[in-house]
Amino acid sequence: MKLLRYGPMGQEKPGLLDADGNIRDLSGVIADLTPTTVTLAEIEKLKAIDPASLPLVEGSARYGVPVNGIGKFIAVGLNYADHAAEANLPVPPEPIFFTKAISCLTGPNDPVMIPKDSLKTDWEVELGIIIGKTCRYVEQADALEHVAGYVLVNDVSERAFQKELGSQWDKGKGCDTFGPTGPWLVTPDEVGDVQALDMFLDVNGTRRQTGNTRTMIFPVAECIAYVSRFITLHPGDLLITGTPPGVGEGQKPSAIFLKAGDTMHLGVTKLGEQRQNVVAFALEHSV
Amino acid sequence: MKLLRYGPMGQEKPGLLDADGNIRDLSGVIADLTPTTVTLAEIEKLKAIDPASLPLVEGSARYGVPVNGIGKFIAVGLNYADHAAEANLPVPPEPIFFTKAISCLTGPNDPVMIPKDSLKTDWEVELGIIIGKTCRYVEQADALEHVAGYVLVNDVSERAFQKELGSQWDKGKGCDTFGPTGPWLVTPDEVGDVQALDMFLDVNGTRRQTGNTRTMIFPVAECIAYVSRFITLHPGDLLITGTPPGVGEGQKPSAIFLKAGDTMHLGVTKLGEQRQNVVAFALEHSV
Repeated sequence: MKLLRYGPMGQEKPGLLDADGNIRDLSGVIADLTPTTVTLAEIEKLKAIDPASLPLVEGSARYGVPVNGIGKFIAVGLNYADHAAEANLPVPPEPIFFTKAISCLTGPNDPVMIPKDSLKTDWEVELGIIIGKTCRYVEQADALEHVAGYVLVNDVSERAFQKELGSQWDKGKGCDTFGPTGPWLVTPDEVGDVQALDMFLDVNGTRRQTGNTRTMIFPVAECIAYVSRFITLHPGDLLITGTPPGVGEGQKPSAIFLKAGDTMHLGVTKLGEQRQNVVAFALEHSV
Repeated sequence: MKLLRYGPMGQEKPGLLDADGNIRDLSGVIADLTPTTVTLAEIEKLKAIDPASLPLVEGSARYGVPVNGIGKFIAVGLNYADHAAEANLPVPPEPIFFTKAISCLTGPNDPVMIPKDSLKTDWEVELGIIIGKTCRYVEQADALEHVAGYVLVNDVSERAFQKELGSQWDKGKGCDTFGPTGPWLVTPDEVGDVQALDMFLDVNGTRRQTGNTRTMIFPVAECIAYVSRFITLHPGDLLITGTPPGVGEGQKPSAIFLKAGDTMHLGVTKLGEQRQNVVAFALEHSV
């Protein structure tokens, strides 16, 4: 099942994607997709619904973040060895993670804004996990049983803010619009083997990132289990799992960063695609 | 005005503290203290209420976190020069900040649990700020106009998780029960000069931390303005501002860390006090 939220920013309604790729309105069934309604138990109830029985949404709608009210947005870093190399950072002996501010979350095709005083805004295609059941000291073998679904995320990052203003990366990870998420929350049964998904990201039509989740250093189940030793994950929390090589700071012969007017196009197999226009700093683009 | 939430965990009601130190029930006026009801405008409405007109809460009640649904919990680190020295870290040339997971928030007098496999759980008395108006590229001169109120926080930290498992501190800052917050959200008019507040923390009756907010490297207004250049702060967000010297890892001749059975007692002038029992790891103490 592909769950989604559609409509103008701040007025999204819940929906699902039917087998023909049409949006069906779920607002007669649930008020919204939230940490309360994306629990494993609630999603099972939604699976019992015949999509054809739901109102068809005509025309093209904007997609919002698939879950409203995400509580925590945690990111595993350096989880692909080739990316660690291009970032000039050692492969970590155990997962490293940081936090993206929830205020950076935006719809998958909303504009990405260059922050004020930014020179090094960069891209990162990632596989995201929406938690469906509380994870606290979860064993790796049980971890995937706590997943509500998977989601595509662009972990937009400002490299100078991240690395040149002190040791803590959070500073360069949570700027407004730095968390395009969606279009869909795809339930695990539709995804199949989560460690066999192709990933790509193009900037202005040029392929920059190519990868597959099979080359993660720490697979999805290990990321969940590991984080849950330190921070309890609750339904609706979003955990992203690192990016393959090809980010802007790793380009040869020299780094390339985003500028106003650029376009990004990214995707992960089975999780859909995102297209973002990059816009200059302006307070009205903040969300 | 001192706003608070009282009652059993998960069933707290909103209240305020009257001039005699009694809790008055606000649940007839607002459903709860949340990011929506701690905006500057909403707090002004609450100030117009005569506390004597509100029901008196008899007996002693548990205090909860003064705001329900805090969106972000951001922490400025190394903001007192003497603490940076005891932490063996340089004084940062500009503020450094990291994130505490919102799932670590607990009431001011709830137990603090040693995480599984922890050997270095430590204390940090801090001044916290509850945001009352969106902060996005706020100037330092205007920053304090965005404050709903101040609050006492114990920034409980696991030093091995924070510093010995990679570069990112978030790993040691967000364990369950690591964010005792309260008892009150105290509005700025009652606090007066926020850079002239005494702070203390005792462990088992021995004074360990003594400080005053006047010795912050980056004062409150600068912390708010600085963070708002990277991460937009919204009403209900909690920003804490660093700890003075005397944490466990800085004790001489050797570090002292918390163990089950210990007690903590801490306070900041005008913001009240907290008392926590330290308990061993047990899943049932997680919140």
